[in-house]
Amino acid sequence: MRKCFYSGVRLLLLFLFVASLTPATMGAQTNGLIIMITDFGTKDFYVGAMKGAMYKVFPQAKIDEISHGVSKFDIKEGAYTLAKAAPEFPTGTVFVGVIDPGVGTQRKPIAMKTKNGNYFVAPDNGLLTLIGGSMGAAEVREITNRDVMRQNVQSSTFHGRDIFGPAAAHLAKGFAFEKIGPVLEEYVQLPISFAKIVNDTIVGQIEVIDEYGNVITNIRPDLFEKLGIQGGQTIEVEFSDHRTVICKYVKAYGDAPVGFFVGLFGSGGVFEVAINQGNLAEQLKLEATGKCIVRKGSD
Amino acid sequence: MRKCFYSGVRLLLLFLFVASLTPATMGAQTNGLIIMITDFGTKDFYVGAMKGAMYKVFPQAKIDEISHGVSKFDIKEGAYTLAKAAPEFPTGTVFVGVIDPGVGTQRKPIAMKTKNGNYFVAPDNGLLTLIGGSMGAAEVREITNRDVMRQNVQSSTFHGRDIFGPAAAHLAKGFAFEKIGPVLEEYVQLPISFAKIVNDTIVGQIEVIDEYGNVITNIRPDLFEKLGIQGGQTIEVEFSDHRTVICKYVKAYGDAPVGFFVGLFGSGGVFEVAINQGNLAEQLKLEATGKCIVRKGSD
Amino acid sequence: MRKCFYSGVRLLLLFLFVASLTPATMGAQTNGLIIMITDFGTKDFYVGAMKGAMYKVFPQAKIDEISHGVSKFDIKEGAYTLAKAAPEFPTGTVFVGVIDPGVGTQRKPIAMKTKNGNYFVAPDNGLLTLIGGSMGAAEVREITNRDVMRQNVQSSTFHGRDIFGPAAAHLAKGFAFEKIGPVLEEYVQLPISFAKIVNDTIVGQIEVIDEYGNVITNIRPDLFEKLGIQGGQTIEVEFSDHRTVICKYVKAYGDAPVGFFVGLFGSGGVFEVAINQGNLAEQLKLEATGKCIVRKGSD
Repeated sequence: MRKCFYSGVRLLLLFLFVASLTPATMGAQTNGLIIMITDFGTKDFYVGAMKGAMYKVFPQAKIDEISHGVSKFDIKEGAYTLAKAAPEFPTGTVFVGVIDPGVGTQRKPIAMKTKNGNYFVAPDNGLLTLIGGSMGAAEVREITNRDVMRQNVQSSTFHGRDIFGPAAAHLAKGFAFEKIGPVLEEYVQLPISFAKIVNDTIVGQIEVIDEYGNVITNIRPDLFEKLGIQGGQTIEVEFSDHRTVICKYVKAYGDAPVGFFVGLFGSGGVFEVAINQGNLAEQLKLEATGKCIVRKGSD
Repeated sequence: MRKCFYSGVRLLLLFLFVASLTPATMGAQTNGLIIMITDFGTKDFYVGAMKGAMYKVFPQAKIDEISHGVSKFDIKEGAYTLAKAAPEFPTGTVFVGVIDPGVGTQRKPIAMKTKNGNYFVAPDNGLLTLIGGSMGAAEVREITNRDVMRQNVQSSTFHGRDIFGPAAAHLAKGFAFEKIGPVLEEYVQLPISFAKIVNDTIVGQIEVIDEYGNVITNIRPDLFEKLGIQGGQTIEVEFSDHRTVICKYVKAYGDAPVGFFVGLFGSGGVFEVAINQGNLAEQLKLEATGKCIVRKGSD
Repeated sequence: MRKCFYSGVRLLLLFLFVASLTPATMGAQTNGLIIMITDFGTKDFYVGAMKGAMYKVFPQAKIDEISHGVSKFDIKEGAYTLAKAAPEFPTGTVFVGVIDPGVGTQRKPIAMKTKNGNYFVAPDNGLLTLIGGSMGAAEVREITNRDVMRQNVQSSTFHGRDIFGPAAAHLAKGFAFEKIGPVLEEYVQLPISFAKIVNDTIVGQIEVIDEYGNVITNIRPDLFEKLGIQGGQTIEVEFSDHRTVICKYVKAYGDAPVGFFVGLFGSGGVFEVAINQGNLAEQLKLEATGKCIVRKGSD
């Protein structure tokens, strides 16, 4: 039996060994993934320092990113990008968002647990507005526990490295959400504007312009249905300063010849206008703001 | 013996536990790596959503990228970049390429297995032309099996998230290549143009301009040998509109003083022209197209 | 006992199996992380090829990056960015830096072990100047052992793929630092300029401009203390060509209204000047060079 006993001990040692090298140390409710979204850009030391601070807490973490290219200080754009990407990830993923013009002021660091079991760590400045709405905020807490922050010095200019990153890494590693700080009854939410129908016209606005120059709006498919606009029909899309596009309402960019305007519901579930293999925003000098009015065209 | 038996059971449990947390679930022929190349850019939610869709299928995947900065819609450039990077990776790597102007139209989603045991998932639009040639396409299949696609909604504008990403993740996880869809007898290939010698002149063309502004051509070393051009000799390189560079044919950028033109065979194995620590394409206003003629200079 | 014996064998097999799939193969002194910093940009095949070469050596590596956006050929900027990010990472991390205008010439490839047990692989061109100073260089070796280089062809234009990457991957995998090549008694160091007090004025210089347009200097807090400048006071900051900013000395960007100048000690521990939610460098047309003079303003 001695051999068996020895084998049992080895088993235990092996278990501990494996546990320390794989994501086995993470909590039952996390999967080891930490997903970043920031406006840091990729030139400076900021992304590297924040990753380092997370790996230092949880060397077995799998750190990846949605984007570091959110427009500087643009909380609304960050909220949009986060809300479109995060739902694709598996349950138990920890997201950390740092678009944080108020760093070092009174704005709070917060962590949100969503109903499906994901975690979001961010400044309390509206960045979690859309994700809280679409995924459902189960609980929001202020991050006050110093055990989940960077040890030694904490700056008043870089909480991605000093607070948000380490807190996210601790959560991913299995730190109890309940111990991160007190429950908040409310968190900052950006105003959301909805498109609507006025007479026979859909009145919406531009939400974002993507890197292809596609102009993405806040108009959802039900408004097209209410107006009875059907695939293949011609529509008229008017932006500010009377910049107007007449195009087919299609399913895919390639449904029109190269260089032609198209209107369609894109992968984010909202209406967008594009040029097949071209850059609409550049051609029309559009920015990520202003109205977007859609009406039936004359076929 | 009871203890031994117990130990055996624990062993089995441990095995399953480890298997579920490490890349052990992947097939015998894959290594857990999924390598992306896209023209998405890094600002929007597209990269994040596609990664999320892959992690959802295979949370233990190691997802990394060659580039998300391929020029928009530029299948030829994507094919070049993929072909130069992919051969460096270990056997069993799954690559997923999305430069896909035809998304949502009739172009097929395909998967290629290469002779050395790598997998490439991409639209059937020519993106795999060079890799199929250099690594050898063992088999190409159309992706038709809905089990390897995104569950729920599939858009007609974002197959990176809805088809290519999930299919790549399933392959990396061990899904049998044979079950992904029917074998294709042929796949779309871009025309490849070869440089040649005309009289005492090498007639080639510009393939790509890199971020350093180095101008990279389709001219291979054997043409230099045939013409008897040797290291250290002066050469004359003519681009379109009579833009001509006279430079030394060297081995390293630093073989000429800073700011001087050099001609050399770069890391991609083809002839390129550069300025030592400068940007040639900018200075000569060259774009990634047009002829490149090389002749011996007068030393 | 046969079952126990069998169980023991299975244990051993399992151990080997796990060992080959997790970072267990790495040396006792490394943690499996390989962190890149380059000036490659993210458009070309260079980053992908270098990663591939590292994964080929060590498929279980966790490869991540500080930045691929260091200004082309800018060794000084690379040294700064590396020195600010690297100390955040856990002990046993292997860093590989490739800002390498001298590739293919006589400059040596080197590896440095720091006192806290990190490794840095880079060209011997000054890139490790600051990290060697701040983390303490325990030993520096020239990389000469061909076993840690890319097999087959090695170019004279891309040592990131051919030498630095593979050497870093071998170190991360557990290759003995002592076998990488002979000890170097000295390595190339860039000159470092220190700010100083002249009369009642701090005379420093601009070190770097970050992506927010914040202007970061080489002025440390002790000079502010010596001059008796205290938080909330007005200061006058003069750059070259008489471009002068009058601003409050604060703790956080948000301590001034949006659009106002601020002066503060940033996350890198040095004095910087910024516009709250604006781009100072753009507004003042400043570049990452030239003097920065600070004096007390009149409150």
